[in-house]
Amino acid sequence: MPDWHSTLPGLLGRVWQSLGRGVADRHAPARHIALATTAPDGTPQVRTVVLRAADPAEATLDIHSDLRSAKVAALRTRPLAEALVWDRRARLQIRLSGEVAILTGPAAAALWSRVPENARPVYGAEPPPGTPIPESLAYATADGTAAFAVLRLTLARIEVLHLGDRHRRAAFLRAGAWQGEWLSP
Amino acid sequence: MPDWHSTLPGLLGRVWQSLGRGVADRHAPARHIALATTAPDGTPQVRTVVLRAADPAEATLDIHSDLRSAKVAALRTRPLAEALVWDRRARLQIRLSGEVAILTGPAAAALWSRVPENARPVYGAEPPPGTPIPESLAYATADGTAAFAVLRLTLARIEVLHLGDRHRRAAFLRAGAWQGEWLSP
Repeated sequence: MPDWHSTLPGLLGRVWQSLGRGVADRHAPARHIALATTAPDGTPQVRTVVLRAADPAEATLDIHSDLRSAKVAALRTRPLAEALVWDRRARLQIRLSGEVAILTGPAAAALWSRVPENARPVYGAEPPPGTPIPESLAYATADGTAAFAVLRLTLARIEVLHLGDRHRRAAFLRAGAWQGEWLSP
Repeated sequence: MPDWHSTLPGLLGRVWQSLGRGVADRHAPARHIALATTAPDGTPQVRTVVLRAADPAEATLDIHSDLRSAKVAALRTRPLAEALVWDRRARLQIRLSGEVAILTGPAAAALWSRVPENARPVYGAEPPPGTPIPESLAYATADGTAAFAVLRLTLARIEVLHLGDRHRRAAFLRAGAWQGEWLSP
């Protein structure tokens, strides 16, 4: 059997395995992913987010956010994102891009009910995230129900780069039924 | 002495310490950073890059790139980037944004001379990076001198988020002489 990194199906399988582990295991490399968006003025933005769900059948990823955050403001103007996983041990970079839907209210309620009690205040800071405050702890945490949002990234493209003795790079497109093609690294 | 994460100078000092370690130590969290750019069509992009230099006096970061890469194409249209470091052990997220200069030819020659021989072919793949190829290894590596570029990010803003018992978030601006201010997390 060839190494996983030497075939297109092997690489794609490893991507979803890595994402699944990120959801299940807080110490996995894909637990904390970098999420890039474009600000309304065109400026690139990137921050660390926690991967909350990964659905290989639909090719979607979920993260949770405060509705009042800068990333939601960016996504309301331009609903596109690219997520990045760097799995150092596997020497594998995974780039995941597509369109983002912002789920709130009833659409997010079922997911909110599964957010642990002790994690809920993260979504209800007052003043809202990013507001200047006079001291480091001059904010309050409140019930986050109203501010909770699920950001669902529907992938259009997955790109992988494996750094081995020789590098391998491939792209998989939803429009190409995820069959994939090799790229020069 | 207060904890480093409880004062603005402490946080900023920790940022530059972390970046310095990233340059010097290939196993440090800031060795591999996420670099976000905006594609010419406005799409957000992010990929892992190696941090090659960090200058606290000038507040600049250097990375190396192939001139023919998609990130250079993006930066030629919109010379802005945000870099992200996630230091899991310190529970610290660092966001570093500003303008990017693309150094080539004589301006990059001194830095090229310090790129190890065995690393040079990375910058000279044929066909150019991102080109579809029929097989995973259907590319050649050539002398990378002509394709080598240094991307120098001159920081305008540094934002940090420390995840402790209570979260602390702060922003430091070049325009504010890097004094910093606290933000609601």
